[in-house]
Amino acid sequence: MRTPDQLLALIEDYLLALELSSELGDLDASMRYALAGGGKRIRPVLCLATAEAIGCEPERALPAATALELVHSFSLVHDDLPALDDDAERRGRPSTHVQWGEAVAILAGDALLGEAVRLALTYPSPAVARELIEATQGMIGGQYLDITRGGDLTELHRLKTGRLFTAAIALALAVADLPESKQAPWRAFAEELGLLFQLVDDLLDRDGYVLVHGVEETRRLADEAAEHAQLRLAEIDADTSVLEGIVAGLAARTS
Amino acid sequence: MRTPDQLLALIEDYLLALELSSELGDLDASMRYALAGGGKRIRPVLCLATAEAIGCEPERALPAATALELVHSFSLVHDDLPALDDDAERRGRPSTHVQWGEAVAILAGDALLGEAVRLALTYPSPAVARELIEATQGMIGGQYLDITRGGDLTELHRLKTGRLFTAAIALALAVADLPESKQAPWRAFAEELGLLFQLVDDLLDRDGYVLVHGVEETRRLADEAAEHAQLRLAEIDADTSVLEGIVAGLAARTS
Repeated sequence: MRTPDQLLALIEDYLLALELSSELGDLDASMRYALAGGGKRIRPVLCLATAEAIGCEPERALPAATALELVHSFSLVHDDLPALDDDAERRGRPSTHVQWGEAVAILAGDALLGEAVRLALTYPSPAVARELIEATQGMIGGQYLDITRGGDLTELHRLKTGRLFTAAIALALAVADLPESKQAPWRAFAEELGLLFQLVDDLLDRDGYVLVHGVEETRRLADEAAEHAQLRLAEIDADTSVLEGIVAGLAARTS
Repeated sequence: MRTPDQLLALIEDYLLALELSSELGDLDASMRYALAGGGKRIRPVLCLATAEAIGCEPERALPAATALELVHSFSLVHDDLPALDDDAERRGRPSTHVQWGEAVAILAGDALLGEAVRLALTYPSPAVARELIEATQGMIGGQYLDITRGGDLTELHRLKTGRLFTAAIALALAVADLPESKQAPWRAFAEELGLLFQLVDDLLDRDGYVLVHGVEETRRLADEAAEHAQLRLAEIDADTSVLEGIVAGLAARTS
């Protein structure tokens, strides 16, 4: 089994070598700028670790995992735009629209989504692309709730953050072609994981759940989600040791 | 054979009944607003007419044809944004960002692209979605050339307008599962058609080719493209009568 750091190295190498549609021309520079920036790549790492736990070579899941990272990147580029969150910085660097201008950032986001779909469509079956686009639509629905302050916080987070997290697992199941009958515990694990990530995010940023429930209760909910995620993993007949480590890391993360 | 008006009616009915991802929530209102507005639906009509000429029921091509219209709609919504063309009107109505606000328009465009991919993925084979997304990336590359004034006019138009036109034909080939060996004359026809559409567009708007070559030369180029398109159709062993009529209509259109 590969460690999370080894999986991360696979993803970084794959991203560096990734060929984008030639017809995008020089737009590719802004897309690569958005993709660089040193994120933790937690979604694609989860995807590869899940694939390997199921018994599928992580390399086979690389296009799917990378497609997910491209969707995540597209969502950040558009979310940072002046009309949405108006964030001038992203991970300590100028955000894409500050660096390349607003028009280019809008097109770069569009093209990142397009490239994600292209990557997902490199598989013989359309199942991977279907999982990816369903999750993407849910995520966009979450962004809409966020800007309109509609729906409740749980639904907003389930969509805006949770959908790409659950997709990390679902894409691995699709790549590994795991029968539908064996997918339920994996999908239950994915739900807990998305919730855990969001709760810890809110603890670190002191917003979202923390504003509604306070720090202590949010910490308790996060620990509960981590415990549930581990219980779901324990129910699965596979070597989930790497995933257990990732859950523990997500629960304890400080950035 | 169905007439173009009958094919148009199929598309309008299908669009009206189209179910969008439930997770998009109320964002769907802005998407349906962008999709209404009474365009000529020339791309999906071409797609259905091509499918029928090949011997495939137009109904089978409806999801693919509609996916193409959604991509076209997505491109208009983002193109009209203040950071790009800054168009306040579209077909005599307020453009999407004027009607719904800029943030919603950005997300509505994103979600229209996502729904297009979802529709293309309703086919058992990934071929339809692949044709769709390749064309989409080319079109985005064309938008990039347009805002950066890079590349020459022919390349800009081939990408920004031509790619979705050629996709109208290519998607029908994919739906009908036409063998690769029989696709060449269809694709040659598609190229001429995209050029014809753009030349007539420039004649009507008095820009693009007209600014470079003048009205007379652009008219001559348009007539030549129409003639070439008809010649390509004549080479094809199928009943292309409806398509011949569409080409004649495109060459003579006044709006």
